[in-house]
Amino acid sequence: MPENEKLHISFSPVGKSVNVSNGSSVLDAARKAGINITSDCGGHGKCGQCRIMIHKGDVSPLNVRERTLLSEKDIDDEYRLACQCKPSSDLKVFIPETSLLNNMRLQLEGNAYRIEVDQIIKSCDLQMDSPTLKDSSADMNRAVDLLKEQYGYKDLTADIGAVKQLPGIMRRHGYEARAFIRYNEIIGFGSKDAVPLGFAVDLGTTKIAAFLMDLTTGKELASTGSINPQAAYGDDLMSRLDYAIHHAGRENAGLCRLSQLIRETFNRMIMELTEKAGCPRTDIADICVVGNTAMTHLFLDLPVGQLAKSPYVAATNLSMDIRARDLGLSACPGAYVHILPGIGGFVGADHVAMILAGGIEQKDITTLGVDIGTNTEIVMWRPDKSMLVSLSCPSGPAFEGAHVTDGMRAANGAIESVKLTKDGVEYKTIGDAPAIGLCGSGIIDAIAELYRWKIIGDRGRFDRENKRVSQGRNGSSFRLTETGKNGNGIVISQKDVAEIQLAKGAINAGIEALLEVTGTSPDMVEEVIIAGAFGSYIDLVNTINIGLLPYFKNAAYKQVGNSAIVGAKMALVSATERKRSQNIAASARYLELTTHHNFSQQFARGMRFPVEKLIVNNKNKQERIEK
Amino acid sequence: MPENEKLHISFSPVGKSVNVSNGSSVLDAARKAGINITSDCGGHGKCGQCRIMIHKGDVSPLNVRERTLLSEKDIDDEYRLACQCKPSSDLKVFIPETSLLNNMRLQLEGNAYRIEVDQIIKSCDLQMDSPTLKDSSADMNRAVDLLKEQYGYKDLTADIGAVKQLPGIMRRHGYEARAFIRYNEIIGFGSKDAVPLGFAVDLGTTKIAAFLMDLTTGKELASTGSINPQAAYGDDLMSRLDYAIHHAGRENAGLCRLSQLIRETFNRMIMELTEKAGCPRTDIADICVVGNTAMTHLFLDLPVGQLAKSPYVAATNLSMDIRARDLGLSACPGAYVHILPGIGGFVGADHVAMILAGGIEQKDITTLGVDIGTNTEIVMWRPDKSMLVSLSCPSGPAFEGAHVTDGMRAANGAIESVKLTKDGVEYKTIGDAPAIGLCGSGIIDAIAELYRWKIIGDRGRFDRENKRVSQGRNGSSFRLTETGKNGNGIVISQKDVAEIQLAKGAINAGIEALLEVTGTSPDMVEEVIIAGAFGSYIDLVNTINIGLLPYFKNAAYKQVGNSAIVGAKMALVSATERKRSQNIAASARYLELTTHHNFSQQFARGMRFPVEKLIVNNKNKQERIEK
Repeated sequence: MPENEKLHISFSPVGKSVNVSNGSSVLDAARKAGINITSDCGGHGKCGQCRIMIHKGDVSPLNVRERTLLSEKDIDDEYRLACQCKPSSDLKVFIPETSLLNNMRLQLEGNAYRIEVDQIIKSCDLQMDSPTLKDSSADMNRAVDLLKEQYGYKDLTADIGAVKQLPGIMRRHGYEARAFIRYNEIIGFGSKDAVPLGFAVDLGTTKIAAFLMDLTTGKELASTGSINPQAAYGDDLMSRLDYAIHHAGRENAGLCRLSQLIRETFNRMIMELTEKAGCPRTDIADICVVGNTAMTHLFLDLPVGQLAKSPYVAATNLSMDIRARDLGLSACPGAYVHILPGIGGFVGADHVAMILAGGIEQKDITTLGVDIGTNTEIVMWRPDKSMLVSLSCPSGPAFEGAHVTDGMRAANGAIESVKLTKDGVEYKTIGDAPAIGLCGSGIIDAIAELYRWKIIGDRGRFDRENKRVSQGRNGSSFRLTETGKNGNGIVISQKDVAEIQLAKGAINAGIEALLEVTGTSPDMVEEVIIAGAFGSYIDLVNTINIGLLPYFKNAAYKQVGNSAIVGAKMALVSATERKRSQNIAASARYLELTTHHNFSQQFARGMRFPVEKLIVNNKNKQERIEK
Repeated sequence: MPENEKLHISFSPVGKSVNVSNGSSVLDAARKAGINITSDCGGHGKCGQCRIMIHKGDVSPLNVRERTLLSEKDIDDEYRLACQCKPSSDLKVFIPETSLLNNMRLQLEGNAYRIEVDQIIKSCDLQMDSPTLKDSSADMNRAVDLLKEQYGYKDLTADIGAVKQLPGIMRRHGYEARAFIRYNEIIGFGSKDAVPLGFAVDLGTTKIAAFLMDLTTGKELASTGSINPQAAYGDDLMSRLDYAIHHAGRENAGLCRLSQLIRETFNRMIMELTEKAGCPRTDIADICVVGNTAMTHLFLDLPVGQLAKSPYVAATNLSMDIRARDLGLSACPGAYVHILPGIGGFVGADHVAMILAGGIEQKDITTLGVDIGTNTEIVMWRPDKSMLVSLSCPSGPAFEGAHVTDGMRAANGAIESVKLTKDGVEYKTIGDAPAIGLCGSGIIDAIAELYRWKIIGDRGRFDRENKRVSQGRNGSSFRLTETGKNGNGIVISQKDVAEIQLAKGAINAGIEALLEVTGTSPDMVEEVIIAGAFGSYIDLVNTINIGLLPYFKNAAYKQVGNSAIVGAKMALVSATERKRSQNIAASARYLELTTHHNFSQQFARGMRFPVEKLIVNNKNKQERIEK
């Protein structure tokens, strides 16, 4: 143990401990121990999410940030903020479940799409003669000659990783093997019955979804999901970019750390998936990753200094093929990682994957595609003009439960739907667990119901006369439950409504701008595709009723789930789909929303509540919605 | 310091010291200190080269190997063998110059060849607009668009290393840069006046020669040479392969160590050359390496188990393009290392480079190409049949001064030429230093003179009646000098003559086999190209007179120097020459000499001395030699 790391911090109920030096915070210690404590602000004492209790030992006294962010009850209960409190002795720390990132609901899958295979990786059988003094050809020359003769390959090359693998493979398996070939390069070898596998990943800011695929049939073999471990360094992208930039140190230590976290997670997923499928990791012959621009930068360890400040310039938006070994990923020796191209700004590979999966640019109807999140990406397709325009709006982290008084991620105990009746509040929690907070879909429901019951007005103001409305830290607030969230009762506050109004403003401004630049009137929109995990959990009618999405009278609304991962899978198994993704990225126009001429007015208008008419029919919401 | 490494060993006159554990030999300690002690046998107590003196401290007692290999005078002088003697206390060790590898004569250069450039790496100027919110294209997209527009590139991709480099380069240099492009890939960027550089290397078993080239003009910018640092692990290839195989340990530690030594040397050379030329290392946009099959395997860290035992199978003989970063080499971020293809067995890339440099397969005359060394590679070209056949003969390490009583490498103090007169012996040493031993060319001269004066007979036996012939450890021996080599006088022994006879036997058997399989009579041979550093120092007439090379009456003999490095330079700067090297490797036939039907008889015949007629005219030896 380094001599200065003499404080021993143990964490319950997770059962991990770690040594740290004086001056570290409890959050630092938890990160070092690999515990993912929620910290939306990245440890800057701004979000108040990293609540913990000190069960034993001495820490720095309660500071002003903690007094501001913790409730009186929290303080009475001896809650502290892990990012603010610094040990001065050995500690025993308790982390409540609400401060942990490990029980989130992950949506792995998009709605079913037919994935057609157009093999990029070919596999060829090799049955070789064993070498003799009379025929002592080099192993790889022998393999290449055979592949030329039996499969018609010309000008084959071999990756050095495959060259290293071959002598052992041949001699262990009686000179029988299967070669994995990518275009004109041998990238590795498997045993004689090996099937080339693919690893498709949607690298989300919050969640990571991954699939193991059979590259020859396009069949899914196994799937898994994980929290993005970078969340411990800040919930939103800017906090993470900020961390990378301000912990540059020697050789960009901060950036390396963040990319390392992703790579380790990918390797754990690869291990889990190949174990599930009963195949060696070296049979993974191709990898396809999608993510937004910041996530691909943080995964690939690309410079982010210029991405974090105006005019927010990416190092690249081109598709890339990088050897898996260059990224420390465990796969077939010469396997590549394919990163889908992005379109511009923060509109990245995941957006292209969404367009790919939805077949949006192939449709013959005017289509709007929306992926709601901390940043909401929106695409507009006008088939008559072959016009594809995308943008990103800063819709804020409210849908992830952040910056919301009693917000939480979509984990067990989160209220996911709300209905107000004249008798009170009806709600449902994830996992039917006791309510501990509100997740994004619950917030939308709650606000829609409050508006429907006129407890909030057209500008979002609370009716202070209502008996469930009281005054609190975040302005007026409406009490949804009597208990939950540390016994204080769960509330929706004026501030929370304002957060949703900001999101509404941004999304509506984005859609308005797209309609305008494509010359589309609202009546012309024929389909609205709502993609993303969050989008598939929201109540569509409530979403339209609060004006988070506009009501297009001629449009069918479709909630398609995580279509980014579907796009990743398509591009993994098909050269045609990869080509399509290139065409999408090359033909799509990127619109920088903040430079759009009447952005501010559209934003302000979008923040208001009055929507033309409330929709009440909640049936068959996947299809056309009637007034 | 690890607790078990408590013995402190210091070395003079080199002035290095190191801590080692009990059980290490003095040779181990020297290796650990980075001192290259000569050890032809790789530290197995067989060659007797690693003579050192213990100036202070206690070591293991003189053992039987040392008693056998050291002369009585050596033992009196308290010489020990570094590989046999183990410290039991702190030591001060003296290493005589004769046991050091650091003063060798290196031949960097082959005879002048015209090298025509056919650029593989293109460089393109980039003057970019600085990004704004209205035009926030990613840096690499901006660069690619410009290259498309101004240079007509289509479907350009970018290596991740170049992507990482670009944001910094652009912003440091006011959005001006120069892109280095290999085929359709951007591999890196330099400042706006950067010239793409190339690094060409001949990786010899003993010596490494390297050049820095301007890839746009083909001009040499700087050159350097080094001992192959692997020599400390054994002089001949088999000792090194043996070391790699028997020190496999965790993750092939021995092999990694040997390849690491080469890579570190390459990086030192790159640093030296770029400093000489005043260019940043990141301007090295291409690297070309030639070497024999074992050396390329040891450089690339390819499996060698199957190469070290019959039937001696290489992992690959194909050409390879490997990212410099995969080999830990310091260059332009996306630069590749090109390894020339080999032909078969141990006939590797250096042989192809020799054919390339000599233009052998393009000649319209029947040509024999010979590169004499520990292994002698020979190629036969029959233009009328388009027949190119190559083989390798095990000619032994005598030409490197090993396995020879008073042999040494071609370093200062080595006798490099010898003439016997009726008055005695005339000789010349390298650097005109006091004689301390015989290098290869001196041995050939000495034996030729002894044969001319009939002091050795047709079967190589010494005339014991000669007054300078006496009996010694290695049979009869002829005294060349009274002093030198520790004051014992330098001798040629019966064993030394036998070593040369073995080499003669092997080389002649090789040439006979080539004549036979190509259906060539000796009179048809029109040119003999003698390549390699050693080949350029030998006296050609003496070489023919002792029958080391046959006398072809219609042939011009040309000593061309190190043509492998010339071939490397050609393949470095020219796509055409790279293509030629592929064609050479694809069309050349490899002949396994030991399987040739009358190998043994030809070998035995070649060992004898009677050559048809002695040549006496020593003038104009670079051209046709008249009887």
